[in-house]
Amino acid sequence: MIKVGINGFGTIGKRVASAVLKQDDMELVGVTKRSPDYALKEFAKYTKIYGVNQEFAKKIGEVLPVEGTLEDLLKDVDVIVDATPEGVGEENKKIYEKYNVNAIFEGGEEHELTGFSFNASANYDEAKGRKYVRVVSCNTTGLIRTLYPLNSEIGLEDVKAVLVRRATDPLDHKKGPINSIVPELKFPSHHGPDVLSVIGGFNIDTYAVKVPTTLMHVHVVITKLKRETTRDEVLKIFSNYPRIYIVEKKLGIESTGQIMELAKELGRSRSDFFETVVWKDSIYVKGREMSYIQAVHQESIVVPENIDAIRAMFGIADKITSIKKTNRSLGIIDKFN
Amino acid sequence: MIKVGINGFGTIGKRVASAVLKQDDMELVGVTKRSPDYALKEFAKYTKIYGVNQEFAKKIGEVLPVEGTLEDLLKDVDVIVDATPEGVGEENKKIYEKYNVNAIFEGGEEHELTGFSFNASANYDEAKGRKYVRVVSCNTTGLIRTLYPLNSEIGLEDVKAVLVRRATDPLDHKKGPINSIVPELKFPSHHGPDVLSVIGGFNIDTYAVKVPTTLMHVHVVITKLKRETTRDEVLKIFSNYPRIYIVEKKLGIESTGQIMELAKELGRSRSDFFETVVWKDSIYVKGREMSYIQAVHQESIVVPENIDAIRAMFGIADKITSIKKTNRSLGIIDKFN
Amino acid sequence: MIKVGINGFGTIGKRVASAVLKQDDMELVGVTKRSPDYALKEFAKYTKIYGVNQEFAKKIGEVLPVEGTLEDLLKDVDVIVDATPEGVGEENKKIYEKYNVNAIFEGGEEHELTGFSFNASANYDEAKGRKYVRVVSCNTTGLIRTLYPLNSEIGLEDVKAVLVRRATDPLDHKKGPINSIVPELKFPSHHGPDVLSVIGGFNIDTYAVKVPTTLMHVHVVITKLKRETTRDEVLKIFSNYPRIYIVEKKLGIESTGQIMELAKELGRSRSDFFETVVWKDSIYVKGREMSYIQAVHQESIVVPENIDAIRAMFGIADKITSIKKTNRSLGIIDKFN
Amino acid sequence: MIKVGINGFGTIGKRVASAVLKQDDMELVGVTKRSPDYALKEFAKYTKIYGVNQEFAKKIGEVLPVEGTLEDLLKDVDVIVDATPEGVGEENKKIYEKYNVNAIFEGGEEHELTGFSFNASANYDEAKGRKYVRVVSCNTTGLIRTLYPLNSEIGLEDVKAVLVRRATDPLDHKKGPINSIVPELKFPSHHGPDVLSVIGGFNIDTYAVKVPTTLMHVHVVITKLKRETTRDEVLKIFSNYPRIYIVEKKLGIESTGQIMELAKELGRSRSDFFETVVWKDSIYVKGREMSYIQAVHQESIVVPENIDAIRAMFGIADKITSIKKTNRSLGIIDKFN
Repeated sequence: MIKVGINGFGTIGKRVASAVLKQDDMELVGVTKRSPDYALKEFAKYTKIYGVNQEFAKKIGEVLPVEGTLEDLLKDVDVIVDATPEGVGEENKKIYEKYNVNAIFEGGEEHELTGFSFNASANYDEAKGRKYVRVVSCNTTGLIRTLYPLNSEIGLEDVKAVLVRRATDPLDHKKGPINSIVPELKFPSHHGPDVLSVIGGFNIDTYAVKVPTTLMHVHVVITKLKRETTRDEVLKIFSNYPRIYIVEKKLGIESTGQIMELAKELGRSRSDFFETVVWKDSIYVKGREMSYIQAVHQESIVVPENIDAIRAMFGIADKITSIKKTNRSLGIIDKFN
Repeated sequence: MIKVGINGFGTIGKRVASAVLKQDDMELVGVTKRSPDYALKEFAKYTKIYGVNQEFAKKIGEVLPVEGTLEDLLKDVDVIVDATPEGVGEENKKIYEKYNVNAIFEGGEEHELTGFSFNASANYDEAKGRKYVRVVSCNTTGLIRTLYPLNSEIGLEDVKAVLVRRATDPLDHKKGPINSIVPELKFPSHHGPDVLSVIGGFNIDTYAVKVPTTLMHVHVVITKLKRETTRDEVLKIFSNYPRIYIVEKKLGIESTGQIMELAKELGRSRSDFFETVVWKDSIYVKGREMSYIQAVHQESIVVPENIDAIRAMFGIADKITSIKKTNRSLGIIDKFN
Repeated sequence: MIKVGINGFGTIGKRVASAVLKQDDMELVGVTKRSPDYALKEFAKYTKIYGVNQEFAKKIGEVLPVEGTLEDLLKDVDVIVDATPEGVGEENKKIYEKYNVNAIFEGGEEHELTGFSFNASANYDEAKGRKYVRVVSCNTTGLIRTLYPLNSEIGLEDVKAVLVRRATDPLDHKKGPINSIVPELKFPSHHGPDVLSVIGGFNIDTYAVKVPTTLMHVHVVITKLKRETTRDEVLKIFSNYPRIYIVEKKLGIESTGQIMELAKELGRSRSDFFETVVWKDSIYVKGREMSYIQAVHQESIVVPENIDAIRAMFGIADKITSIKKTNRSLGIIDKFN
Repeated sequence: MIKVGINGFGTIGKRVASAVLKQDDMELVGVTKRSPDYALKEFAKYTKIYGVNQEFAKKIGEVLPVEGTLEDLLKDVDVIVDATPEGVGEENKKIYEKYNVNAIFEGGEEHELTGFSFNASANYDEAKGRKYVRVVSCNTTGLIRTLYPLNSEIGLEDVKAVLVRRATDPLDHKKGPINSIVPELKFPSHHGPDVLSVIGGFNIDTYAVKVPTTLMHVHVVITKLKRETTRDEVLKIFSNYPRIYIVEKKLGIESTGQIMELAKELGRSRSDFFETVVWKDSIYVKGREMSYIQAVHQESIVVPENIDAIRAMFGIADKITSIKKTNRSLGIIDKFN
């Protein structure tokens, strides 16, 4: 049983915490937070609560029983999942080093922080024995889920991807835009290089445009392949690789709202959608050119990768075993290539 | 075991169907639909599927096994829950009469269709022995949940309520507005008279304004009471009556987005919120005047009332027993006055 | 010719500046800003540009010719319109005092800053001879425009107003919410007392709810009058008082989007709507109770009041003359009671 | 003086009507509509009003003086601009033929209806002597404005464009989505072939994604050129060709909301933006690959093309003269290559 702690109980942290609870080879020791809220109150039924430091522990203590601080938690765990806000991981790493605890960082941190960026399908085996692993961001994970299979089975030469980004998460009412489109003007966007931190052998340029919605990112992915393919071959590849969910319009899915509704019908925890969702209708092949449209649930897509990363770094299960275990625990359909 | 059928598998129908599955004194015989989609495909794991008529049965049959038509379903049930679109209930009632089946209609239908409009707290006992019962709409149910307690415990003289309405449900991408406010210009709105179809003894005027959001309705309720009260008394009343959930800003709930997030943390089916949610911070008392703000999850608030209505019409449980059974099955906190 | 300067070239500042240019008894000396942008570049064709201080003057100077700083501007004007962000006015007032310049503040400042809050219809004459005048905010101006006539002609006893507020202005893409309703939880909201800083003799409670739109605020106003009235009388009153624009559904106006479209058809500067817009359809009378719905263009409604406030404080025109001059210059239909 | 009629007084029709009023070589004879509204009432000050047929003429006549029907208007004009809803043009053409009147159709109609699709820069001279001309849609016009110069000056080999589309116009509160992204699942979208109906010699694939905003479309345009270029060369080309407006972030334009705000500052009629707006920051060159992001104001971008199309078909001015006249009348900055 790997003892796991979660540092930060926000959008990602609370989801990874819930997922850890569902694993039979992991134990959730506790989670940290800065202030009490309803989410923490509900989750306190399942694990121990720690303040990020003394001050925050005291603040939470006014509402809920608190075990101690982050440093107390670190004494009791084998690995800490750092789900703190973007850019905080670098400082945190020093504390983790002090307690000699393995750590998993999220995609808000730079690749350089760990020197290794992770995706379960693409490079599970390379994580073994590493002290620090970075799970790439939601957009990057979403892209790798479909690009890695294409690259493995057909070979990618060039990728242009336009990321139509949800602006913020559903619970956040402070950030906009309300009625504007906001293109990212730094070109190309950081997502392309981030994909290449995990897989490679092809060129990729990404462009990001922020739009007034909270539900999912949508990616228009335009590829040039190393050889000609067919729509059927692409569909077969996407059907065989893990964590790709294929939907189509004729069964009622035309929008991100309808995908999130499907998550509810699937009975997923927090109505999450852990897979990259590809529209069957959108797969378009013209010789060596192939394009498709996919949707990414920013809040949850990295959750299974975090679980696999824990197993991978400690070497307690091989790649296929880990992916299957994680999938089953989260209700993801099992398949493998 | 009451045998239940659901006619219509949309937003309300699928939720009532899921709730029936969780009752130990009811059996879900089947649901009807017009065309197959992912929601139906997933739900086919739990019950039998019927087409609304031969044509629709055939259409669904191309994707899923179909048992027959609505009329086939009616032969096998004690009661049918009519969750068809607004205004269709009147025609359907003739079919239900033909098969001598009890029926529950939703708030989109007129009070006159059944002559009896239902809310579990307010008039459970009056449903007994009725062939046809109408469960009032989401906004009306939301209002009755808090007005009935106030009227019972303190006495209402006058109510002005402004309903800031979500424009459409999250899965619908066809309806707007995207960036406009659209007041309902018929005055006062129909919600006031609808409240009076269930409870009475006071005046109520309601005003509705449609806004560009999909999550929840928000009600500003301004009352004049029959006697002076205090904030504490109001809080105590709301705390004792069923299906009222009190939230406050200091634990992180300022917006409808944050309430829907709480539903996810509570682990509710489809991330639904079955209670009327009242902001503690908003309760304001000035002599005999008292006002408050509440939020209503339009997709799910009537679900527990539908379940109770079934028990009430067949007289298989008394009011308190039914409300408690329903609440426990759906994860609603139990309390009663 | 009154020499006018504008301190702050944001949403309100630039509009008051444009309006001053259209008056035959005022001269726009210049405007201040903190950094150059397209708006300033375009407006530099019409007036002189000043930096708020040396640093900002330098920054603007890299793009546009700059005359100097705010203090230089103050040497050349009779009155400065303070259109700086909320709460900055208090500090600015000290600088204005140093240069012995009259000043007009906006509704973001407290009433106490000037001891006098202004609305052209309600208290024009009381502004005469004052050194400092505060023009009340957009919501308060919108309410006073219709409440003052009702109070003058019929008599108000009690007002409950629910303000369905646009969340931010169209050019701002940073603020949300995108898909939430956010009620203001401090009760009642500050708008009621603010109305009473200009007119009085009745009780008023206001409630505010923020919604995901950028165009206009919508007010549901529920009044209790001192005597019975009729719909016709109310319509006649609203038709006779200045800066109330009556619209109706049958000529195509059901939403705030359609009101803003009408502003375009009217050929208004910046497609602004300077009047309080009342829906004829919404006027509802029941004995001494009367309610109606109105819309307020937050960006421009205070512009004519700022112009009138300048004339009022210097006593260069009587109330009716000033309102008529301002109206004609801005394309507002002339009427007076 | 060319006598012009406008059939249909919606978003495009009313704008073309206003533009015709500003030309010194055209006379606006009248406009048709189906029902009266505020827009028509205001515009009746400037031209004669006709009903589309007797029934609609009667309906409008209840509110405004009406001259007659569409057929009466056709007797008095040299050319009719058909600004009726998508797909109606085909039927209308028969009526225009009956009265032997030239006609301009909009991009909602098929290319085949006229056999000639128009853009002022690209093929002005080819319109001469034609009886029927089609002005391409907003998205297509927006693309041609920048692709034609690139193709002429450098040479295009391949274009991939992702169109992030506003879902509906600001005045429409009926259409959504409110909080979803809706990709167009027919691949590639019709916009690519539509571009090729005007200019050619390269491949183009377009992809469209609908998002919850009303203001402007945003295009991510990814090109492969026939030779290498530089950022400076591209900027110079865009600066020299007509109806391209270059903006940059450092002067305050990051979003479509800020572009629409600039239209207000420019004092444009109805706060319209007639040019294709290109973000300077977004121009990215890598060898023969070049990409950029542009925004298109769907309501007005085709207005100047309609005016030029009238001159072009009657041969009353050469291309440069016409573009310059149109530009000056609408406040568009003059430039030409």
